[in-house]
Amino acid sequence: MPIFPYFYQKFTSMNINGKHYHTIWLKKNDPKTIQIIDQRLLPFEFKTQDLKTIQDAYTAIKEMWVRGAPLIGVAAAYGMYLGFLGLNDSENLNQEIKDLGLFLESSRPTAVNLKFAIDLVLEKTNAGKSLSDKIQIALETANQLKLDEIENCRLIGENGFPLIEKISKAKKGDTVNILTHCNAGWLACVDYGTATAPIYLAHEKGIKIHVWVDETRPRNQGARLTAFEMDQQGIPHTVIADNTGGLLMQKGMVDMVIVGSDRTSSNGDVANKIGTYLKALAAHDNKIPFYAALPLSTIDWNMNDGINEIPIEQRDEDEVKYVEGWNNNQITKVRVMPENSPVLNYGFDVTPAKYVSAIITENGVCNANKEDIENLKK
Amino acid sequence: MPIFPYFYQKFTSMNINGKHYHTIWLKKNDPKTIQIIDQRLLPFEFKTQDLKTIQDAYTAIKEMWVRGAPLIGVAAAYGMYLGFLGLNDSENLNQEIKDLGLFLESSRPTAVNLKFAIDLVLEKTNAGKSLSDKIQIALETANQLKLDEIENCRLIGENGFPLIEKISKAKKGDTVNILTHCNAGWLACVDYGTATAPIYLAHEKGIKIHVWVDETRPRNQGARLTAFEMDQQGIPHTVIADNTGGLLMQKGMVDMVIVGSDRTSSNGDVANKIGTYLKALAAHDNKIPFYAALPLSTIDWNMNDGINEIPIEQRDEDEVKYVEGWNNNQITKVRVMPENSPVLNYGFDVTPAKYVSAIITENGVCNANKEDIENLKK
Repeated sequence: MPIFPYFYQKFTSMNINGKHYHTIWLKKNDPKTIQIIDQRLLPFEFKTQDLKTIQDAYTAIKEMWVRGAPLIGVAAAYGMYLGFLGLNDSENLNQEIKDLGLFLESSRPTAVNLKFAIDLVLEKTNAGKSLSDKIQIALETANQLKLDEIENCRLIGENGFPLIEKISKAKKGDTVNILTHCNAGWLACVDYGTATAPIYLAHEKGIKIHVWVDETRPRNQGARLTAFEMDQQGIPHTVIADNTGGLLMQKGMVDMVIVGSDRTSSNGDVANKIGTYLKALAAHDNKIPFYAALPLSTIDWNMNDGINEIPIEQRDEDEVKYVEGWNNNQITKVRVMPENSPVLNYGFDVTPAKYVSAIITENGVCNANKEDIENLKK
Repeated sequence: MPIFPYFYQKFTSMNINGKHYHTIWLKKNDPKTIQIIDQRLLPFEFKTQDLKTIQDAYTAIKEMWVRGAPLIGVAAAYGMYLGFLGLNDSENLNQEIKDLGLFLESSRPTAVNLKFAIDLVLEKTNAGKSLSDKIQIALETANQLKLDEIENCRLIGENGFPLIEKISKAKKGDTVNILTHCNAGWLACVDYGTATAPIYLAHEKGIKIHVWVDETRPRNQGARLTAFEMDQQGIPHTVIADNTGGLLMQKGMVDMVIVGSDRTSSNGDVANKIGTYLKALAAHDNKIPFYAALPLSTIDWNMNDGINEIPIEQRDEDEVKYVEGWNNNQITKVRVMPENSPVLNYGFDVTPAKYVSAIITENGVCNANKEDIENLKK
């Protein structure tokens, strides 16, 4: 099975300097090495990294060379494969395999996809009779997970596309202005992205679009990553401060909002990067549709009240206190506030279902309510 | 008339390193020099500058050593005084005086208070029979304008205070959490500030308060200036990314919002720093009062529809593309997004009157509607 499955794609996204990429792949002519895009340096430098051991994969996940839930999962699966490659057939093999999983899981303990991917590899490789069998199964499992993630994103694109097309028709082919927050693009996944998949497909189909990119403080994933994707993909876009979206909506300069989701409750409350809720309120106030694009794996089927039940991660003060950027050809951090002033840095907020116009998934588009979301499973 | 009128104050604000300051004053024992706080370096360095000529005042206003509408006006009045000091009695005196005004007005052409203050000095000095008369009148006019600005802010504090006190009582003395956006503090005025005046008075009266300081991208006036004021004043505060306020309101961590205003239409639509509207929406969604504190001079009595009529300034792309902060003991700029991606940088937005719980002015507090605002004049 080819790891770079061009034939597999119905539409192409993720071009960097004109060349098609995934965020992670087996090195050409060296199937014992995994390569990734080093996202720490984007958009300032484009660099790939070789991962040769499970320790390398651990570092890449922990230090956020790769980030985004789907990509973390795939990187973990390949990391387990690298771990199997490093084992010797011994009496303690079962224990050593277990240790690989525990080690890799500790890289980012709260990432749901990380644990899912590691458990999947552990379960599948269990069936292998020899170490070489297990190595082969680990690789196939990682490859398959990667393909599944690509296919989910591709389908989100296909399912979300008609929403853009409809607005384009209503505007008689005039530019459709789409606002997005944070990075729910191919850099967070393997290809296509979630929120960006319908955007890339619309662009490929020749629909005139323009994307408002929220810079997304405090980590600036919009300004750094989404703007990079749009720039590389050749999609008309404009970076704005997070404060700007409300005014643009008042002025009729936004036709729709599409965001991703880190976790969605079964009643349709959407947790996403902090600030998403404010854009949903402004969209509602100005009668602009607000969509969340997400794979079904993001839905927490057992949770019925996202507002009150989704735990919100508090992150380091320094993410607000210091801003990282490019100066003198290197990443440089500057302090932007008084040394002594305290900071509170929540990573996410939850948009109530009543402000979500629809949810876009690989299984279709549905209203943000319990019954319609439940029907997606079928 | 003392320029540093301690006796004049009913409550004290604006302490820096424990010492009381205004943002602008006549130099001690040298009435031909004006001193200002150099706001470009805050919060990283506290430095004052001597202004000895109208050229110095021009530079201070143009290069934003001083900023904030009330302060710009007072600085312009003192700048005219410095200009008069530099004149010689000649046949061309009237033309030279006119030229002073035109020169200073060109420092920041769109600032309404700038023109107002210059015209005021020109009008008053007209009555002076000799150049030395005119110099004396210019100084007195600047001094009086300064006192008027202080008194307006003090009264905004007195009038807004009961709104905080009421919440404190309802919470049985528990901490009142106040969110503010941008800097409508003493650094934008001469003393007290507008949005901050009720906060400083509440603090002085021993009411337990805590202030959420929006960092206020793209220029970070909240993180840099409001946090500095709160820190120096000893007021419990926390800096947050602009994206955070909505979540805090959902979680019950905000009791009220107070912001300033750059222009308010006669029907109560409030133009203020970009992003204010998003906070007003979140306050409304969570049933939290949202107040705008402003001197009557901010009200545009002839404008009946702020949403559609208030022009919104577009500012330089680089304010979003680069972030200025402190690194290696100096102001340093870092680029935070791709070199080629475009930026749109609106400076302000307009909050519809229906989301404004009340307007706090030197003449009292009123609802944000035409009739009640009109009554403030009386």
